[in-house]
Amino acid sequence: MDRFDVTILGCGSATPTLRHHPSAQALNCRDRVMLIDCAEGTQLQMRRYSIPFSRVSDIFISHLHGDHCLGLPGFLSTLTLQDQKNPVTIHMPQQGIDLFDRMISFFSPGSKDLVKLKPIPDGINVIAETRAMKVTAFPLYHRMPCFGFIFRENERPRRLLGDVAETLGIPHSLRNCIKAGADWCRPADGRVFANSELTADPLPSLSYAYCSDTMADSRVAKAIRGVDVVYHETTYLSDMAAQAHARGHSTAAEAARIAAEAEAKILVIGHYSKRYTSPEPLVAEAASIFPGTVIAADEGLVIDVARLNQKL
Amino acid sequence: MDRFDVTILGCGSATPTLRHHPSAQALNCRDRVMLIDCAEGTQLQMRRYSIPFSRVSDIFISHLHGDHCLGLPGFLSTLTLQDQKNPVTIHMPQQGIDLFDRMISFFSPGSKDLVKLKPIPDGINVIAETRAMKVTAFPLYHRMPCFGFIFRENERPRRLLGDVAETLGIPHSLRNCIKAGADWCRPADGRVFANSELTADPLPSLSYAYCSDTMADSRVAKAIRGVDVVYHETTYLSDMAAQAHARGHSTAAEAARIAAEAEAKILVIGHYSKRYTSPEPLVAEAASIFPGTVIAADEGLVIDVARLNQKL
Repeated sequence: MDRFDVTILGCGSATPTLRHHPSAQALNCRDRVMLIDCAEGTQLQMRRYSIPFSRVSDIFISHLHGDHCLGLPGFLSTLTLQDQKNPVTIHMPQQGIDLFDRMISFFSPGSKDLVKLKPIPDGINVIAETRAMKVTAFPLYHRMPCFGFIFRENERPRRLLGDVAETLGIPHSLRNCIKAGADWCRPADGRVFANSELTADPLPSLSYAYCSDTMADSRVAKAIRGVDVVYHETTYLSDMAAQAHARGHSTAAEAARIAAEAEAKILVIGHYSKRYTSPEPLVAEAASIFPGTVIAADEGLVIDVARLNQKL
Repeated sequence: MDRFDVTILGCGSATPTLRHHPSAQALNCRDRVMLIDCAEGTQLQMRRYSIPFSRVSDIFISHLHGDHCLGLPGFLSTLTLQDQKNPVTIHMPQQGIDLFDRMISFFSPGSKDLVKLKPIPDGINVIAETRAMKVTAFPLYHRMPCFGFIFRENERPRRLLGDVAETLGIPHSLRNCIKAGADWCRPADGRVFANSELTADPLPSLSYAYCSDTMADSRVAKAIRGVDVVYHETTYLSDMAAQAHARGHSTAAEAARIAAEAEAKILVIGHYSKRYTSPEPLVAEAASIFPGTVIAADEGLVIDVARLNQKL
């Protein structure tokens, strides 16, 4: 099974505590790593949870509050010290580009050719693409410009029916074409086998959405509709709704409504206010509304999207 | 006994490992806290070792390599979130002032009146002063402008001989004057008691010097001569002397020679290269040269200068 998993590196809110680090996640799709937010201490969390630095190709910064991006200069400085050769693209809101450009030049003067800063355009856009997937940025609703991200695998090839292929003696050199949809003509007698006789429907493409920090908003549900797994911030319980809204955050109940509206299968909650010593009440509040599975983010937790999706 | 101690928050070198955080120390002199360097993750280390954020009055940044200063924006951001009222002065080499000013304005817009950035002047200068002590900056010899710091208690008052004072019936209101050196005239008969009859010599003033990052240099020994405790970097063992010098660092043997030349009583070593899984060989190398006590820095270690000084 191809890898598609997310390791939680930090899921606390602005003030770091000894329970939770601030926001950072590492998404691994077929051994290519993408960081989602990069708070202070992210590089240490990566070491702790064995995320390979050299495999990081992209870093997606949701917004320019310190608890989502202040680990960048240190991480890039370490990459430079390690003489990393693979380029890294950092996607962030426009208003951080100039300052981070200066910070990176100052603290990692050797990283000029290694690091590329790319502003995230307004609206809903595919901002990165690999052979295996596309990353779409979409607006969140916080106290400053803020983006969520959807990581969606490209459509997978059809699955060759192995026993049929063996029985018919289809050469290996043609099998990728057949997986891509081609029919096959048997040379011995010229008989054409339709692709539908040779293949089964592809496995579904996997998808993961990251929504932090944001007020609960139906436009978010619309943007992420149909994702398998959504991480949506739940900074507070409902009794703190006024504070949540004043600060541009969501309650657990609100996040659950967004995930339900988006028809996600799994809701991962996080970005806990430091007032909560356990995520249990937040999980309970979300689970009372969201019909799917609710998972509490925690440092070191691996959300294996591929495996979870097989089970559902 | 008045507090004068240093808590090691990080004593690794540039690349953070799971064994050591990068450079940061918290000096507590009579419950006023001064941070010495402030690498990424310092605020979390402060929580871990119960260093009170609100007591920090000054932060001394030795130089502008990321592993000595990248924890500043996050720490200041947390101070702002906590609505701290006590001002904090950050002393750093001139070439970092402009960038940090921008970073602090960007990430902690509410800290304008709270935080003051002050360039460290060239040469040897007293750069901060409290009722209890003076902080002197002096040049270190690294790959960029870099400063060491001496924290030296002001001369303490003479010690009133309690039994003499009681027998003579010296009023409490006059005792501070006598500690400051005054004689005392007994009102009953006009007899003058010389100060030397009423007091003993003061306890010695305590001092701590911080020398990281630097090549070993006799000018450093001269600048810190006579300190009680010196922290001197020992990034490498002697077999790596060439690499140490190329990178502007010291070996354990060299640090020991500097500490000996400075006639310090205690040498604390640190800033270990990530190649060392234990500080033992570095301690052994330093101890083979330095006649006083060698202590290996470690996260959470408290160097109680006051108590150590009493023992020696």
